[in-house]
Amino acid sequence: MMTKSIQTKDIINLVLPAVRGLAAYHIDETPVRVKLDAMENPFFLPDNIRKEIGKSSQQALINRYPDPSATKLKQAIARYWKMDRSRMLLGNGSDELIQAVILAFGGPVLAPSPSFAMYEITATALSQKVVTVPLTDEFDLDASAVIKAAERIKAKVIFLACPNNPTGNRFSDTAMRMVLEKTNAVVVIDEAYFSFSGRTFLPFLKKHNNMIILRTLSKIGLAGLRVGVLTASKELIGELNKIRLPYNINTLSQAAGLVALKHASTLNKQISLLISERRKLYNALLRTPGVTPFPTETNFILMWIEKDATKVFQALRKRGILVKNLDRPGPLKGCLRVTIGTPAENMEFLKELKSILTTDQNGFHKAMPRRSY
Amino acid sequence: MMTKSIQTKDIINLVLPAVRGLAAYHIDETPVRVKLDAMENPFFLPDNIRKEIGKSSQQALINRYPDPSATKLKQAIARYWKMDRSRMLLGNGSDELIQAVILAFGGPVLAPSPSFAMYEITATALSQKVVTVPLTDEFDLDASAVIKAAERIKAKVIFLACPNNPTGNRFSDTAMRMVLEKTNAVVVIDEAYFSFSGRTFLPFLKKHNNMIILRTLSKIGLAGLRVGVLTASKELIGELNKIRLPYNINTLSQAAGLVALKHASTLNKQISLLISERRKLYNALLRTPGVTPFPTETNFILMWIEKDATKVFQALRKRGILVKNLDRPGPLKGCLRVTIGTPAENMEFLKELKSILTTDQNGFHKAMPRRSY
Repeated sequence: MMTKSIQTKDIINLVLPAVRGLAAYHIDETPVRVKLDAMENPFFLPDNIRKEIGKSSQQALINRYPDPSATKLKQAIARYWKMDRSRMLLGNGSDELIQAVILAFGGPVLAPSPSFAMYEITATALSQKVVTVPLTDEFDLDASAVIKAAERIKAKVIFLACPNNPTGNRFSDTAMRMVLEKTNAVVVIDEAYFSFSGRTFLPFLKKHNNMIILRTLSKIGLAGLRVGVLTASKELIGELNKIRLPYNINTLSQAAGLVALKHASTLNKQISLLISERRKLYNALLRTPGVTPFPTETNFILMWIEKDATKVFQALRKRGILVKNLDRPGPLKGCLRVTIGTPAENMEFLKELKSILTTDQNGFHKAMPRRSY
Repeated sequence: MMTKSIQTKDIINLVLPAVRGLAAYHIDETPVRVKLDAMENPFFLPDNIRKEIGKSSQQALINRYPDPSATKLKQAIARYWKMDRSRMLLGNGSDELIQAVILAFGGPVLAPSPSFAMYEITATALSQKVVTVPLTDEFDLDASAVIKAAERIKAKVIFLACPNNPTGNRFSDTAMRMVLEKTNAVVVIDEAYFSFSGRTFLPFLKKHNNMIILRTLSKIGLAGLRVGVLTASKELIGELNKIRLPYNINTLSQAAGLVALKHASTLNKQISLLISERRKLYNALLRTPGVTPFPTETNFILMWIEKDATKVFQALRKRGILVKNLDRPGPLKGCLRVTIGTPAENMEFLKELKSILTTDQNGFHKAMPRRSY
C-alpha cells in the first residue's frame, strides 16, 4: 500500500521501454513560400468542387457519429480504383492501416531500407522488433536477402513500398514476386504512389493469400482528409476489421471524399499534369551540373548533390523553398528529395537550386555515388 | 523454403490469438425514425454555424496534410474547457486515445464493470490482459476492491469513466480519490459526459502525477468530427505523443471544430436544454409503472424494466425507436439505456414505451433488482 502520491518519474518508468526510447515523429512546420517536402498535390481543387465540398459539409449531420462502415466512400473508392469493396478497409490515413496490420500480426516486422519511415517507427512504437534489409545499389529489392532475413527472424509482416519512398523507383517485378511466393509472412505492398506509376499488384491479390495492398487518397490531392485504403482477402479483412476503431473515418472526410471522387477526371488531370511536370523537372535536373536525379515513378524526385547537400537544403530553405533533406550517413548520403509542385514552383525550385550550386562557396566536391545510373 | 503459395488459413493463423478470438465491434446500423442509442446530441447545429462550417470546408486546403499539432483547435478546446494546451493531446475520438494509453503502458488493464465497453475491447485487441471489478450494488466504484485487484494483477492502467457509461452516475469522490492515491497504476478518468454533470477532476491534475483525463467533442454535439481530448502531465503527454499518428486529426474536423467552438454559447444552450429534458424524462419514467430509472449525470438514462426488457427493446425498434439493449445476464439484466433526444423524440419514446408496457402481453413479471434506489 502506498503512503504518498506516486512521482512523475515513476509514472514515466511505467511507459514501455520501446516507447520511452522513441523520439516523437518530427515534422518540419516552418512556414515556407514553396512547400515541396511532403509529396502533397500542389493544386487547389477547382472552385466548383470546393463549392460542392462546402455544401456537403454544411449539410453533414456532424452531431451524429459517422457511418462506421463508410459505405458510400468505400463504394466510390472501389469504383475509382476497380477494387472489390467487400475486401476493403479504410483507415485514418495509411498510417492507421500500417498500425492495424502490425497490431493484428505482431512482429518481427521486416522492411527494406531506405523505405517509408513509418513502417519502422510504427513497429517500434508498438514494441515490435524491426529488421531492415538494404536495397541493392540500384535501389531494387534484394529478394533473396529479404527472404533469408524473413526466415531467420521469423518475420510476421514484410512492408514493401512499390513505388518506393524515398527512392522513387518501383522494385522489379521478379524481386517482388519472389518475395511474395517464397515467404510465410504477410506481405504489405504499399502502393501510395500508384497513380504516378500506373502499375499495380491488384490483379495478383487472389493468387497470393498473404498479400495486402495499401493505397491512399493523400497522393491524389486529398491529403487533408486522411483516408487510407487497404485491400486483401475477405478473411484478412475480417481480422483487421476487429482492430479498426469503429468510427475511424469522420463524417466530413467521408462527405468530402465522396464529392472529390465524383470529379475523378479532375483529379486525374492534375495527376497527368504532375507526371508531365515530373518529366520536365527530371530532364532539367539531368542537365544541371552537380546534380544526379534518380528515375522515379512517383510525384517526387530523389537527387544526389555533388556539393554538401545539407548546405544546399539550408540555402533553399533560406530562399523559402522546403524540400526533404535525406543527407545522413548511409545510402542516401548527399541526397535531397523534392516533391513535384506546380509548374511555377518547379521552375522556382530549379532556378534557386542552380543559383545556389553556382554561387554558394560552402560546398565541397565529392565522388559520385557508386550507383549504376 | 516454400514450394507453393501459402494458404489463407495459414495466414489467418498468423493473426495474434487475442485478435482472432475477438468479435468485431457491433454497431446497430438499422435506419430508425428516432435514434436514441448512441448518446448523440440530437440537435442539428443552427443555420449560421452550418453555413460557416460549409465556408471553412470550402476554403480548406485539403490537398495539403493537416496541421499535425492541430494548434488552433487545441487552443479553442483549451479555452472552452479551461485546460492547459501544452498538456493536451487530441485523438481521432477518445477511442484512439484509449488505444494510445494502452499502447504506451501495456497491460494488465483494469476497469470497473459495467463500464464503457471500449476499454475492454481495445485492451483485448491489443493482446493485453483485462481484469474487471464489479461496481457496488449502488453502481459506485468499489475502491478497495479496485486497489486490491490492481495490486494483485500489477495493473498498468485503470480506466474510470466518471460519470460512468452505461450506468449514468458519477462515482463517489471518496472512492475516486482513494484509487488515485493508493495505486501505482496510471488512472484514466474518462470525463466524456462532463458537460452533463459539471463536475471534473481537472483541478487535481497537478496533484496526481498518475492521472490522465479524457474528454470528447462527441457529446457536445460534434460526434461526426471524431475529436477526443486527453490532458495529463507534460511528461506523460510527451510519451503519449510518440504513439499518436502524426496527422491524426484531419483538416476538415480541425476547421469545423474551430467554427463550432467559436459558437460555444450555442453548444452550451443545447446542453442545458438536454439537461432539462433529462430531468423531465427521468421524472416521467419514475412515474411510469414497471420502469425504474437510475439517477444520471449524463445525456442518457439507464432504466430497469419489470417486463422482458429485450422484448420491450424489440417492440420499440418495431415502432421506429432505437435504444440500447443491455439486457444480458449480470448486473444490467432487465435494463435498457435511452439517450436524451429532442423534446419531441423523448415524448414519442415515452408514449411508445408506455403503450408497449400496457398492451404487450409477452412480458413477464420479475422481482425488482437488489439496488437501493
